[in-house]
Amino acid sequence: MKMKFAVAQSGGPTAAINATLLGVIEGALENGAEILGAVNGIKGVINDDFINLNDIFEDAQNRALLKNTPGAYLGSCRIKLPDVSDGSDIYEKIFDVFKKNNINKFVYIGGNDSMDTVDKLSNYAKNNGIDISVVGAPKTIDNDLAGTDHTPGFGSAARFVASSVKEVARDSGVYAEKSITIIEIMGRNAGWLTAASALARSDNSTAPHLIYLPERPISREKIIEDIKNCPENNIIIAVSEGIKDENGEYYCAQSTQSHDIFGHAQLAGCAKVLEEMLGAEFGYKMRSVELSVLQRCGGHFTSRTDLDESEQIGKRAAQCASEGKSGIVMGFKRTSDYVCTIVENNVCDVANKERKMPDEYISDSSNDVTDAFIKYCKPLIMGDVQVITENGVPKHITR
Amino acid sequence: MKMKFAVAQSGGPTAAINATLLGVIEGALENGAEILGAVNGIKGVINDDFINLNDIFEDAQNRALLKNTPGAYLGSCRIKLPDVSDGSDIYEKIFDVFKKNNINKFVYIGGNDSMDTVDKLSNYAKNNGIDISVVGAPKTIDNDLAGTDHTPGFGSAARFVASSVKEVARDSGVYAEKSITIIEIMGRNAGWLTAASALARSDNSTAPHLIYLPERPISREKIIEDIKNCPENNIIIAVSEGIKDENGEYYCAQSTQSHDIFGHAQLAGCAKVLEEMLGAEFGYKMRSVELSVLQRCGGHFTSRTDLDESEQIGKRAAQCASEGKSGIVMGFKRTSDYVCTIVENNVCDVANKERKMPDEYISDSSNDVTDAFIKYCKPLIMGDVQVITENGVPKHITR
Repeated sequence: MKMKFAVAQSGGPTAAINATLLGVIEGALENGAEILGAVNGIKGVINDDFINLNDIFEDAQNRALLKNTPGAYLGSCRIKLPDVSDGSDIYEKIFDVFKKNNINKFVYIGGNDSMDTVDKLSNYAKNNGIDISVVGAPKTIDNDLAGTDHTPGFGSAARFVASSVKEVARDSGVYAEKSITIIEIMGRNAGWLTAASALARSDNSTAPHLIYLPERPISREKIIEDIKNCPENNIIIAVSEGIKDENGEYYCAQSTQSHDIFGHAQLAGCAKVLEEMLGAEFGYKMRSVELSVLQRCGGHFTSRTDLDESEQIGKRAAQCASEGKSGIVMGFKRTSDYVCTIVENNVCDVANKERKMPDEYISDSSNDVTDAFIKYCKPLIMGDVQVITENGVPKHITR
Repeated sequence: MKMKFAVAQSGGPTAAINATLLGVIEGALENGAEILGAVNGIKGVINDDFINLNDIFEDAQNRALLKNTPGAYLGSCRIKLPDVSDGSDIYEKIFDVFKKNNINKFVYIGGNDSMDTVDKLSNYAKNNGIDISVVGAPKTIDNDLAGTDHTPGFGSAARFVASSVKEVARDSGVYAEKSITIIEIMGRNAGWLTAASALARSDNSTAPHLIYLPERPISREKIIEDIKNCPENNIIIAVSEGIKDENGEYYCAQSTQSHDIFGHAQLAGCAKVLEEMLGAEFGYKMRSVELSVLQRCGGHFTSRTDLDESEQIGKRAAQCASEGKSGIVMGFKRTSDYVCTIVENNVCDVANKERKMPDEYISDSSNDVTDAFIKYCKPLIMGDVQVITENGVPKHITR
């Protein structure tokens, strides 16, 4: 049977998920295979909504643009498939579409939920004697997937976070008056990306001065004490959006009693909540900065290591599919400082699992990271990427 | 009398104000002069708090780092001097410190308020027969100074804004569901920087789809109508922080009735206010993004044109001071597309004035900019800068 690929992207955007898509396309092209892209993840398969990728990406310039375009070229979705025991209709639909299009290789690029889809589809195929390889390629800026040293997309987001924290420190340091600047970084349950802010430090730049992670609940009193003990004039605090107090309550949830002029509940971020709280306590000049989606779509300042690895892992996923492997997801294994090889994990060992920061990466004081974390994280943000620009702004490819 | 310079920085930080400082230093060094840097603007003069810049910046690597470090190397302040008729004590103090340190050239880098200081100091010197040249070098990301085609610092901020808006458009466009993303950009009274978001557009990227500026009051009903008329699935709206409604009320002020859990009034930005308002109206997925201080300290993605011009204008300011000129501020004059020369303005024609967007740059629909604005703005964001990095993040020089 002639080899024919489908590929799709799922979950939240990153600056490197298109590099992985490029890798999958290159893997297919090297096998002389056709490759279709499903629009908006598994939804595109269900709706038989594909675009032909061979025509577009035989062009080298388009391939270069794809590697440097943030977001998700094929579009994304947030769908979790039902258990097959709850009804096989959707599975029949999916495999009908695969069959109709002669697709026998499917690579799904995504995070936790997407690996659940890989798991379910590969099991369904196996249990129903359908000859199709279903392979997962990981991505997430959160770095919280199991079975891998780190995730594609994390390095670029970490570089953007560390660089932005350093730049905000220059900004907040210009005035002689005491100040506190709180920078909110993505990470609901895992603090990896917030921890990466520590890479902003250098011989002449001490920010961030305090780092709070979701892995360690932190009381108001402890935060206030930490600030009192901080000798800096312009204090920079990096916080995960998902930090909790000593009762396990999210700080960000503690603004919900607030209402705007229209009477709607306002959900502020945790940085805003801390800004109010600490402003009342200290009376310093206060500012909160949310890095917001910029940290995951900052294609103008990515990590070369991350983009190259993201491409390689996609290529390897396509290669595994071409070899007939199924029900696996790619991961990185660090073999030395710094060399990573790509490993194949059974997807059932990865799906629906969440990898939090281990204790050895968090300081005993619960307000910083350890040297072991710095050693772990630093190689992932290294390497400059020459941005392709057009009229002064990054040039992107769109479908 | 031997030539001796003092230089200081004032007002809000930018990514290019240190390039101007570099230019002033270079101008002094070329004249074989000593140059002192006053710490925290005019405060540093008042407190006799100087650092010697010759030693540090005879080193070429330090000069390169200074050009690429955002913030304000010497520190800043926000001080407006009293009218001399209200008491000359502070002026006597300042000129005593100048005399004590043998300073006869003073270059002040800053915005509106700083040019007021240049005006007052040069007048005081003239009226009291003190032989000192006081010269201003402009800076502000707001681009709202009089007597100049544009301001140093604007081009880099504009590049960061346009690039970020384009990247946020990639991010918000990944899902099939309808969405509205509101991006809040600095500019309380002048819309230049928000207008620059239009440079995000290219053949295959239509965002931003609506642009609202402080120069044109806009009603809720008009915003809602504009959105209804917008054919896009994922709508991106760029708004100045200072937009007002048809009654001249700031949108951002309309959240002050909101209180957090601690009972404190919460001042949300206008994007947050619009997010609530439009979410209630349309029921789409909503997001607001504040570019916050990142847009003025984004030293990792500056405009080469801006950095080079900022350096040149500083050098010219030092040159004017060395020639004994006083009471002037440098400006740019556009002579062709795109060539700018540096002109000397009387500081009294510049200080305390605010240059808003002219009508010819704003569309009749009040929700976009014109082609004339694009033609004006585009050259200012052009040119890549090779970022100097250290361990994967930008390397900065600090005092």
